[in-house]
Amino acid sequence: MGCYAAAFRHDGRRKVKLPQGLLCALLCLLAAWVANAQGSSHPRLLLTAAEVRENADSWRQSEYFSALLKRTQERVDSYFQTAPEVPWPKDAGGGYTHEQHKRNAAAVWDAGLLYLWTGEPEYSNHVRGLLLAYSDLYPSLPEHPQKKEQAPGRLFWQSLNEAVWLVNSILGYDAVYESLSTADRSRIESRLFRNMVEFLSVESPQTFDRIHNHGAWAAAAVGMTGYVLNDSGYVNRALLGLKQDGSAGFLKQLDELLSPGGYYQEGPYYQRYALMPLVLFAKAIEQNEPERRIFDYRGGVLRKAIHTTLQLSYNGKFFPINDAIKDKGLDTFELDYAIPIAWGLTLEPSLLSLLEGRGTLALTGDGLRMARAWEAGLGAPFAYASIQLRDGPEGGGGALSIMRSGSHPGHAALVFKATSQGMGHGHFDRLNWLYYDNGREIISDYGAARFLNIVQKNGGHYLPENNSWAKQTVAHNTLVVDHNSHFGGVLQAAEEAAPDTHFFHLGEQTQIASAREANAYPGVEFTRTVMLLKSQAFPAPLVVDILKVRGNTAHQYDLPLYYQGQVIESTPPLVAASTTLKRVGNSNGYQHLWLRARNTIERGVKYSHTWLAGNRFYTWSQIANARLSVLMTETGASDPEFNLRHEPGLLFRVEDANRVTFVGALETHGEYNGAREFTTGSGSRIAAIRRFGAGDKDLIQIETITGERLCLAFSYDADTSKTHAISLPDGNFAWAGFHRRFSC
Amino acid sequence: MGCYAAAFRHDGRRKVKLPQGLLCALLCLLAAWVANAQGSSHPRLLLTAAEVRENADSWRQSEYFSALLKRTQERVDSYFQTAPEVPWPKDAGGGYTHEQHKRNAAAVWDAGLLYLWTGEPEYSNHVRGLLLAYSDLYPSLPEHPQKKEQAPGRLFWQSLNEAVWLVNSILGYDAVYESLSTADRSRIESRLFRNMVEFLSVESPQTFDRIHNHGAWAAAAVGMTGYVLNDSGYVNRALLGLKQDGSAGFLKQLDELLSPGGYYQEGPYYQRYALMPLVLFAKAIEQNEPERRIFDYRGGVLRKAIHTTLQLSYNGKFFPINDAIKDKGLDTFELDYAIPIAWGLTLEPSLLSLLEGRGTLALTGDGLRMARAWEAGLGAPFAYASIQLRDGPEGGGGALSIMRSGSHPGHAALVFKATSQGMGHGHFDRLNWLYYDNGREIISDYGAARFLNIVQKNGGHYLPENNSWAKQTVAHNTLVVDHNSHFGGVLQAAEEAAPDTHFFHLGEQTQIASAREANAYPGVEFTRTVMLLKSQAFPAPLVVDILKVRGNTAHQYDLPLYYQGQVIESTPPLVAASTTLKRVGNSNGYQHLWLRARNTIERGVKYSHTWLAGNRFYTWSQIANARLSVLMTETGASDPEFNLRHEPGLLFRVEDANRVTFVGALETHGEYNGAREFTTGSGSRIAAIRRFGAGDKDLIQIETITGERLCLAFSYDADTSKTHAISLPDGNFAWAGFHRRFSC
Repeated sequence: MGCYAAAFRHDGRRKVKLPQGLLCALLCLLAAWVANAQGSSHPRLLLTAAEVRENADSWRQSEYFSALLKRTQERVDSYFQTAPEVPWPKDAGGGYTHEQHKRNAAAVWDAGLLYLWTGEPEYSNHVRGLLLAYSDLYPSLPEHPQKKEQAPGRLFWQSLNEAVWLVNSILGYDAVYESLSTADRSRIESRLFRNMVEFLSVESPQTFDRIHNHGAWAAAAVGMTGYVLNDSGYVNRALLGLKQDGSAGFLKQLDELLSPGGYYQEGPYYQRYALMPLVLFAKAIEQNEPERRIFDYRGGVLRKAIHTTLQLSYNGKFFPINDAIKDKGLDTFELDYAIPIAWGLTLEPSLLSLLEGRGTLALTGDGLRMARAWEAGLGAPFAYASIQLRDGPEGGGGALSIMRSGSHPGHAALVFKATSQGMGHGHFDRLNWLYYDNGREIISDYGAARFLNIVQKNGGHYLPENNSWAKQTVAHNTLVVDHNSHFGGVLQAAEEAAPDTHFFHLGEQTQIASAREANAYPGVEFTRTVMLLKSQAFPAPLVVDILKVRGNTAHQYDLPLYYQGQVIESTPPLVAASTTLKRVGNSNGYQHLWLRARNTIERGVKYSHTWLAGNRFYTWSQIANARLSVLMTETGASDPEFNLRHEPGLLFRVEDANRVTFVGALETHGEYNGAREFTTGSGSRIAAIRRFGAGDKDLIQIETITGERLCLAFSYDADTSKTHAISLPDGNFAWAGFHRRFSC
Repeated sequence: MGCYAAAFRHDGRRKVKLPQGLLCALLCLLAAWVANAQGSSHPRLLLTAAEVRENADSWRQSEYFSALLKRTQERVDSYFQTAPEVPWPKDAGGGYTHEQHKRNAAAVWDAGLLYLWTGEPEYSNHVRGLLLAYSDLYPSLPEHPQKKEQAPGRLFWQSLNEAVWLVNSILGYDAVYESLSTADRSRIESRLFRNMVEFLSVESPQTFDRIHNHGAWAAAAVGMTGYVLNDSGYVNRALLGLKQDGSAGFLKQLDELLSPGGYYQEGPYYQRYALMPLVLFAKAIEQNEPERRIFDYRGGVLRKAIHTTLQLSYNGKFFPINDAIKDKGLDTFELDYAIPIAWGLTLEPSLLSLLEGRGTLALTGDGLRMARAWEAGLGAPFAYASIQLRDGPEGGGGALSIMRSGSHPGHAALVFKATSQGMGHGHFDRLNWLYYDNGREIISDYGAARFLNIVQKNGGHYLPENNSWAKQTVAHNTLVVDHNSHFGGVLQAAEEAAPDTHFFHLGEQTQIASAREANAYPGVEFTRTVMLLKSQAFPAPLVVDILKVRGNTAHQYDLPLYYQGQVIESTPPLVAASTTLKRVGNSNGYQHLWLRARNTIERGVKYSHTWLAGNRFYTWSQIANARLSVLMTETGASDPEFNLRHEPGLLFRVEDANRVTFVGALETHGEYNGAREFTTGSGSRIAAIRRFGAGDKDLIQIETITGERLCLAFSYDADTSKTHAISLPDGNFAWAGFHRRFSC
């Protein structure tokens, strides 16, 4: 408590704590008073002195905000109970020195915010103490001993962490700026911040000028420091790149990192992360140079990016496509800032509902006003939408399609991935799909093979199984040809082309997305059409999936399906491997699959698989116009360090065929109620699925056990001026454009 | 809506619906008015006419009760939208006719309750219609075509279901009695209820006079019918058995089914079920013959049984020992009645807290008063306790010990099972244990192999794997000798003897339960001592487990441990079976275990196994005074119908030894926070576990990585007058009685 400074040498972890004196406390109080009484020049990043003054008393009237502030206070008070160590950098990510420097930066930021709201000088003293300690340490640091090859840091093994550190610290410094003496400011700025800025920009051009989220963090760090230090050179460098010609820098990042609709090519998990430097720096730009109208830049791409991030979720968790830790969702730190910033710009009532049950939020003016509006009952339910998110800087890199049965809790959501590769964190899963219902994953994606921050698991980094399993095509619900992953599993090849997303339609009863992939395998093209249908013949939305594969020679076609739940029934029954389990294959991900059971299904015969997930039943029904091997699999083979979760799957295999059409349907049905001891509708309602092909056109007929029929006709040609027809003994079906649904 | 009667013939499902006339409605209203205006003689089972009158208006002031009632109304209104079928009995449990008769009985009860509270004649008409239909059907019914051998029914395949049906229906009839004409009453009573009573009692002596929960249901059905029909002969038969001499019947059930503390030998899952007829009939006895003081009978065993049922749970779910479906818990139907009845007797504030988040409760006077008390803020948190529950009618059949770290949500609970066998639903798992923490199962029991009411899964009955896996010893966390289950897996042998529960101690820092099993295997005796310890050396409660096995010849000793979570680390590392999985054995449950990995650990060397469950880490550390094989297992082998869940386990094996002592410890540590991206304390703090034996005495020393030591000395002799000592190079340890804890 009180004022202190901690000084540290790189030869050890020696701490020096200055005496806490009355004079010191008085000086602190005086400084705080001066800051509050005058038109202060700081803070000027996420909130302004005027905002703080305006709410100096009234924030206590918000129960929600007060509770947040109190929790932050408890955390910060506990952290500073003994002066935090500022150790000589030594460890890689996950190790002690790495984590300690991260913790210190977060504490600087938190303590700064607390100082602004409470005016308690102890908090500005905490910031001052740590920043002076870093000012002593930083100038003498060489490159980090565990440096990563491409972009080493000094405090950290990679410069990315250093940029994040600076963003945290400059926010804390900005908050307490007015309370510091000129001597302190000068020491901290010259020894610490200016050194870091030079290191992150001029001395790290390969990162700073890169159009990549690492570059965005560096730009944000340098630009925000520029505003706080009144150094327009830094700001220009951040906005326009080292050459200051706009060929790199923040504006270029905004041009190229996001699609016009605000989708980030690496997928939702990294979108959340990439969003952080973008919105923080943009907010700072808005505060300091409102005339730039940064949030309107490029059609408001940043506002759209925040909304897109929220839409990329189900039941609070992000869709785990590409490298993704599945427990990440809307409750993450990044959204603590992004949500209030978006709300501050739009005052959209539906954003307020995201505060329900949320334990954390930015302690900013936006955060406070948002909390008060929510407490005043101004919120509306968040409107989860069916949307297609185009990928690529111009929107030409494929798309992610999200089809929902509604917006209510427990609604069904079908996600169809026909995006571009998404750089190094992308998976080889063209035309993959996922399904959610009843608050749960039903058809799932493994996500990344990684235990974030758990040192025993490869130091918390990506595991070897991320490459050998999670990225491979067979780990996804999409086509594998000849046991090989899309693009041979080669990133560079995959980056060159995106799928052709030739059709997307949102109707009241029928939602459809369709795409074609012609580059993943030489000589093989596949078109997938997925639908979310409402029909009186089914108690819940029905998914239909049509995968048409054309090879110019004979191939083996494998179509995996990963589901979450407990098997209830398979028809015809699969034959289990009872006494010995073998692997499905020995490479490209297949080596991680145990073969638990299998059977062979004749051409056109339906295989159906029912499972229980939560309190509902789900049945997948599959036909193909070829003899089908059905394999039941489970992950966990070739896993010497027990890194994989053990999850069930099916694999539908057609051997030795040129062209094949797979047609599948997913029903949601019935209820299992253990507490009340009843079960209803545990069986599938689909009696038959039939496909009638005519040239490139298809008519799919789904018949229920009570005789209702649903017919779906497809030309796979989006041109609505063209008409099509299929004649069957039952009658003639004619339509225009891509598809039509018939009563039949 | 309105009055109607449905009549059904056994040659079909024909429905006859009488016209709904004004006269009919007026008669119904008149009858309801008469019932409410006069001192009515009915209802007289779970609530009285006086209770209903008293609360006729005021129940609407309870939001909770009104909401319950409204939900029941919605359900019942929807059920009676078309006249429910009363089909000719045909199907076994789970089939249509079985479920339909169950649904009808529940609807009769519900509609009766609604009639009492709302006075709406449509509800009494629903009851009347169904009961008249059953009056037409019942007299002509032969034995059920799917009859179960031991106790066939007529409406149902077993008489148990028929007794439950009668309990439901007589409650509905009691509720609407005053609204019915004499002719209707006479028809329903003579054709339906009296026939059923005779069938369930005189004609089914093997069930009626059996001391078993089936007998309790029959007694409740007959006795409650006796009260409603004013037939004291039925009541006496129910209370005292067919001979009316007390050799059977309800009072004998109360004497013998429950232990003096209110524990039911089959375990919590069936305790919940067995409780239902006991408390319903007891409540009816209390209403009609308060002078019997039935709730004080045998030291208040029924009150104790209700409380015991509540204590036999963690985070709302029952401890799943013996045959148990794991999703059953305090939210079940049976407790909707038991909880308010207990509250009506005791007005214990802690029972009120069980209404928090509870969506269902009995629509009785007790239920209403309880809801109002809760709404008035009179509740207190339920006091989950550390207790030992003696088993057996005299308490001499072993015990179930529950040790808790507190009563707060997320507290840790250690369950030690040293009970008697528990009849046909008992598992062969003497001295098994379970552990809960942070709201989750940590060390788990498989429970029963059954999907309740799911017809595809063996008609919803117990699966073959219940015998071949779930009941077998190797499916539990206890000793298996020579690959064979306790008592050779023979029920009769197991029923003959219970473990010797020789020690139980509840201290502030130390809770201990110890028991000895000498009958499970000829020539082998084993003593197990489990402890829940608080210690400054550990951040969370520590479990210590000492299993001492003495064989008079050499045996193979297997000690399984089933945990829930994802493996983080095994030290020394186990060697995984990467390309082929084999089974651990081929009989007595071993055939269901895949052998995933193994290693051999030298005598005295510690094996430790860390996993992640929820957001916490757990480490099990094991030593033995013999060479130890460590096997990592997973359930799912020899499972042709995919009936088993796939769950991980460890199996510690000592081959070819006479005497062995296994010492294990379970730590809870650290935090994994995915949303906030941090992990703390993911590693074990135990550096070493050492055992120093001296004769039959042991000193266990646990040393942490920071050098703290915890020493636990055991004589295994509860006689506190005896003193004991062990001398070590470090010092001498002396104590009196069973155990002592030392700083060392």
